[in-house]
Amino acid sequence: MIQKFITLTLVLLLSLGTYAQSITGFKPENKAAQLELEAQFESRLKAENLDAWMQRLAAEPHWVGTDYGKKNAEWMAEQFRSWGYDAKIETYHILFPYPKVRELELLSPDPYTAKLTAVPVEGDPYTAQGDALLPSYNAFSTDGEAEAELVFVNYGIPQDYEELEKMGIDVKGKIVIAKYYGSWRGIKPKLAAEKGAIGCIIYSDPEDDGYVRGDVYPEGAFKNKTGVQRGSVMDMPLYPGDVLTPGYAAKKDAKRLDRKDAPTITKIPVLPISYEDALPLLSALKGPVAPNAWKGGLPITYHVGPGPAKVRIKLEFDWKITPAHNVIAKLEGSTYPDQWVMRGNHHDAWVHGANDPVSGMVAVMEEARVIGELAKQGKRPKRTVVYAAWDAEEPGLIGSTEWVEDHEKELQAKLVAYINTDSNGRGFFGAGGSHTLQAMVSEVADAVTDPQTGVSIKERRIARQLAGGGNASFELSALGSGSDYTPFIQHAGIASLNIGFGGENAGGEYHTIYDTYPHYTRFKDPGFNYGVALANTAGRIVLRMANADVLPFEFKQWHATVEGYLKEIMEETENRRKEVKRHNELVDRKAYALAADPRENIAPPKKKEEIPYLDFSPLQNSLATLGDRIAELEALSPESLPVEKQKSLNAALQETEQVLTDMTGLPRRPWFRHRLYAPGFYTGYGVKTLPGVREAIEQENWKEAQEQIELLAETFKRMDQHIVNLIRLSK
Amino acid sequence: MIQKFITLTLVLLLSLGTYAQSITGFKPENKAAQLELEAQFESRLKAENLDAWMQRLAAEPHWVGTDYGKKNAEWMAEQFRSWGYDAKIETYHILFPYPKVRELELLSPDPYTAKLTAVPVEGDPYTAQGDALLPSYNAFSTDGEAEAELVFVNYGIPQDYEELEKMGIDVKGKIVIAKYYGSWRGIKPKLAAEKGAIGCIIYSDPEDDGYVRGDVYPEGAFKNKTGVQRGSVMDMPLYPGDVLTPGYAAKKDAKRLDRKDAPTITKIPVLPISYEDALPLLSALKGPVAPNAWKGGLPITYHVGPGPAKVRIKLEFDWKITPAHNVIAKLEGSTYPDQWVMRGNHHDAWVHGANDPVSGMVAVMEEARVIGELAKQGKRPKRTVVYAAWDAEEPGLIGSTEWVEDHEKELQAKLVAYINTDSNGRGFFGAGGSHTLQAMVSEVADAVTDPQTGVSIKERRIARQLAGGGNASFELSALGSGSDYTPFIQHAGIASLNIGFGGENAGGEYHTIYDTYPHYTRFKDPGFNYGVALANTAGRIVLRMANADVLPFEFKQWHATVEGYLKEIMEETENRRKEVKRHNELVDRKAYALAADPRENIAPPKKKEEIPYLDFSPLQNSLATLGDRIAELEALSPESLPVEKQKSLNAALQETEQVLTDMTGLPRRPWFRHRLYAPGFYTGYGVKTLPGVREAIEQENWKEAQEQIELLAETFKRMDQHIVNLIRLSK
Repeated sequence: MIQKFITLTLVLLLSLGTYAQSITGFKPENKAAQLELEAQFESRLKAENLDAWMQRLAAEPHWVGTDYGKKNAEWMAEQFRSWGYDAKIETYHILFPYPKVRELELLSPDPYTAKLTAVPVEGDPYTAQGDALLPSYNAFSTDGEAEAELVFVNYGIPQDYEELEKMGIDVKGKIVIAKYYGSWRGIKPKLAAEKGAIGCIIYSDPEDDGYVRGDVYPEGAFKNKTGVQRGSVMDMPLYPGDVLTPGYAAKKDAKRLDRKDAPTITKIPVLPISYEDALPLLSALKGPVAPNAWKGGLPITYHVGPGPAKVRIKLEFDWKITPAHNVIAKLEGSTYPDQWVMRGNHHDAWVHGANDPVSGMVAVMEEARVIGELAKQGKRPKRTVVYAAWDAEEPGLIGSTEWVEDHEKELQAKLVAYINTDSNGRGFFGAGGSHTLQAMVSEVADAVTDPQTGVSIKERRIARQLAGGGNASFELSALGSGSDYTPFIQHAGIASLNIGFGGENAGGEYHTIYDTYPHYTRFKDPGFNYGVALANTAGRIVLRMANADVLPFEFKQWHATVEGYLKEIMEETENRRKEVKRHNELVDRKAYALAADPRENIAPPKKKEEIPYLDFSPLQNSLATLGDRIAELEALSPESLPVEKQKSLNAALQETEQVLTDMTGLPRRPWFRHRLYAPGFYTGYGVKTLPGVREAIEQENWKEAQEQIELLAETFKRMDQHIVNLIRLSK
Repeated sequence: MIQKFITLTLVLLLSLGTYAQSITGFKPENKAAQLELEAQFESRLKAENLDAWMQRLAAEPHWVGTDYGKKNAEWMAEQFRSWGYDAKIETYHILFPYPKVRELELLSPDPYTAKLTAVPVEGDPYTAQGDALLPSYNAFSTDGEAEAELVFVNYGIPQDYEELEKMGIDVKGKIVIAKYYGSWRGIKPKLAAEKGAIGCIIYSDPEDDGYVRGDVYPEGAFKNKTGVQRGSVMDMPLYPGDVLTPGYAAKKDAKRLDRKDAPTITKIPVLPISYEDALPLLSALKGPVAPNAWKGGLPITYHVGPGPAKVRIKLEFDWKITPAHNVIAKLEGSTYPDQWVMRGNHHDAWVHGANDPVSGMVAVMEEARVIGELAKQGKRPKRTVVYAAWDAEEPGLIGSTEWVEDHEKELQAKLVAYINTDSNGRGFFGAGGSHTLQAMVSEVADAVTDPQTGVSIKERRIARQLAGGGNASFELSALGSGSDYTPFIQHAGIASLNIGFGGENAGGEYHTIYDTYPHYTRFKDPGFNYGVALANTAGRIVLRMANADVLPFEFKQWHATVEGYLKEIMEETENRRKEVKRHNELVDRKAYALAADPRENIAPPKKKEEIPYLDFSPLQNSLATLGDRIAELEALSPESLPVEKQKSLNAALQETEQVLTDMTGLPRRPWFRHRLYAPGFYTGYGVKTLPGVREAIEQENWKEAQEQIELLAETFKRMDQHIVNLIRLSK
């Protein structure tokens, strides 16, 4: 009895907590109903569904083009239908390479042939599937054969090549070996080729996700010596999606580029290997000892080379046009059928993909199931809800990109927001996305309880920020690339989110044969408690976006964030100016030359170009005006307007993210149209905010920087006009 | 001919450079003569002497008590005599333990018996000397046997135990294994015993001086898997020197403590091992994965334990009273025979000690030879020059400490300064010491040319500071402990310096069987160019101190330095106050508890005691007064006073460092008397400046901190009176 009393009291307290919450976009009399709906939604989520579905979806390897992948798509479509959705499979025909020949040899001094095979775990049915497992490779490596001396290039990112230059080491005509991590993998062969290398090997150093991090699989979660990370090396910062149909859908009869003209296939052959295979190669290098920061966790002295290690690499692929099956499931809205809220996750994996992508996919399905069930009981969302299971995400966000390119106009007319997930695990709530949605996500994060601690997921996340020395504010990170939100936000200008839990789910299984159900349930999210938390969080976001009287876009936090980006760029430019000045003074007094060890033959650095003063005032002025305008807007309360007026307002609000995009796109990569966020040209996934301006400065292109400042100021002025319109419609 | 012309021009330019130099303490008409003397001194230094003498001194192992050590002492005394010195051997009788029994076993899970033996290098006569090599051990470990579960404690320093506490791991009744580095080695068993451990193993992780740093010996300079660092673990922060005769000389018939009462012998057995021997022990640990910062370079997942690894350690020593032979060689001064300038280096080694100590010792000898030669030609120094070769430095600064304790009154009456060296190699000029000597050392550093770059050793050092992001000022570091300057500065209150070159001489040979002539000449200082640079630098310092009209003590830089220390302590106290405040706020809002992984059972931190405001004003006021007084003194030019007046002034100047010491010493360790510098009670060698105040604050003893502030202010007031006296004597 006492137990029951406590439980009841807790429920009451929690309920009171819930009902005291603020939820933007709802008129006062609709708030309680929405919160009641969300509580019902939450109460129906079942961890056992996630568990069962993961076992089903991740039973066999299911990369794009496999029978099992197709079966998964068909089965999911069937499930959506059973929950009341209008589900169909939309198929595109994309280029996908399957590895036919993979050879890597150390020719001298001591010959070694790379094994290129991960060992199965004793007694484990998944890793024992032999030939059914996709061989380890990097998709969209070019075919090729190369034989040359080896050079170790650390992570193979721009600053590593600066370091090599200081050492007087040129990779021209060499084969480079780079560690995974430090950047998105596709940057490594791209830069290596730009520097003249003729082949690229990427390996997983034990320091990054092997024994240095923790016990290795199957004893622990980390990468054992045979594990290999697969992954795409397509030049996605140029454009993602099918390499042969840039900017338009890869329909069966679409006009296609010649493969040899496809700019996003690598210029040199590239192959990923395990640390077992990397050890003989790295051990055979001589030349300078690697800089301290380059050293990994292998029990050797890391040398840079070049040589005497000489290696041969040979790669051939079966380049086939392959069907990619997206599952699209719609539940028509009761009030605004032509305003859509979309939710998606990919379903293709490199191998079994229990974590990536199935852990996210099963949460998506459970949300859809419960929302469908509630609809059947008369609680149909006001706006149309669209669920998606994307195919061919792994090789290059292909399924989602082709679909967005196919439906671009319709999406721009109808889609309010796209909410993405991609893998999930135990830990802390993480969210990135359009900053107009930050306030809404923050409110949702107040409403969801963390399964381990009983506080809200927001409180736990803030606790972590504080314990790590940070502040107590909830902020969305900015989105670069790396999952299926990319075509929505970067190309079509749709407000997007990417959310998930993690931080207590570390492992080395990513894109290996070990990303299986047993690994997931032992190390990532035992009991699927965070899978349910994800469904709860994403589901509430969908329901709020779908039911809000006024779409919950917020502009004050958005403005503060953008102002922060500008401040950051201005400060970084100022700091770089000071650094260049000091650097040049030091070159003049020969400080670097005198400080260097004469035996190491380090070329002393040269003087750098002084950084000119840029005119940031167009941005400062337009943002200042915008700030005043937003203050005016935020003082209004459109939630209480009559519905017809709200319809016009909502229609205008929905266009917000498109105001922030520009059909001309970024310099040299017009596919990327957003003026606030883009993946970095030399970081790959990593975001660059205010990318036109920032990257021009980073690349010391001062003329372009000033042009981009003007263009961005134009965007802010358009945004100002947009806010003027919203003010008009909010009265 | 052209070559000759260029050479001549260079000589002229260099000479002009030299003669333009300022040298403090000389009246204008004596400056040129002094610089000419120094130029002659420099021109007579011969690298081949250093080379030959190193081969002689480092031919066989020569730790204290060995026949070869005695022969070295006698041979050096003979050399000094041949150069015109009055040389004698002063012998003390000290307790020195020789290892009789050294046993270390992993008992379970998989038994392993530690080899405890470094392998000889093929074809190398030194490392092949077998039983003549001193077995690897830690001197002044207690005898003992222990059997217990093992715990990995990282470096075994205070913050590591805080981390263990968070993990809920207690070392009580366990045997700890700690990495070398992170502190002076003696701190590791001291702290382990304080925490209740019953045994301590110290090993050299390959990350610190093995293959992670570079190729291992004999291929490269770093520690191979069998190398073991020997070294003393005597509790030197309490008092150095003979453990049985604290504060007085260990003469043959001295009253001695019972060994069991000697407070500086460790409380638990402690043994150093190689990374080959450490690997099976560390591999056998389970329990939590070690924090990231703890992980070393072995190819394993580092776990903390405790256990299941169970180890047994057994150590027995032959505790013998052993003769320690100091060589003391005097060259009487022409004008001030009762003012001494002393120069020393130790001669005992753990094994052959080519680098430590012989590389410094041979430079000392070469200086002495040339100064003796110049004296014979009528250029005898004005003050008496005393050369010392100390014995028994390695086990605990014993030879020098006993000698200083023996001659304390005479030294305080006569000794102007002590200049120490201890090992030397290729690279940058480094100097620590009394800040009253900073200006003089800086002037000497202007006069010495770097052998590799041709600029002054000061310019090269400043270049390194600048290239590393630092400033362009030449500063002496503060002295803690770690070599034979300790009894001079810390106990007797004699102005001291410790100088050397390094930074391009890294290796893993320290205190191993690999510190030999071949290793030294390949990796440390090929050609002995930096040995000559050291002799040149130290010799010039000796000659300036010996010949100066007015002793070159300077007070303005001294004052700025001390003011800097005070500022630092005040800022650190303020920062700690803020940190404690934030910490307590975070504990109150449960941020640490919520941020922790519930599966890791990390105990959330508790609230800390708030830091009270201390009254620093006595220090601020006394330093302000002192600053004004020093400005008054520095405006005077005593170099031009008549000689008789200068004699009184010099006598007063010589007492300066004693004004800064206090016979009551530091709390709980009265042997350490200096009020500005001391080795840290929990850092061992590492210096703590204004140690009474700083350590009281660090140990959160606020009452003692305030008391120490008052005591230090008294010291500054005494210094003020001293400056008043100097002003009087300078007119």
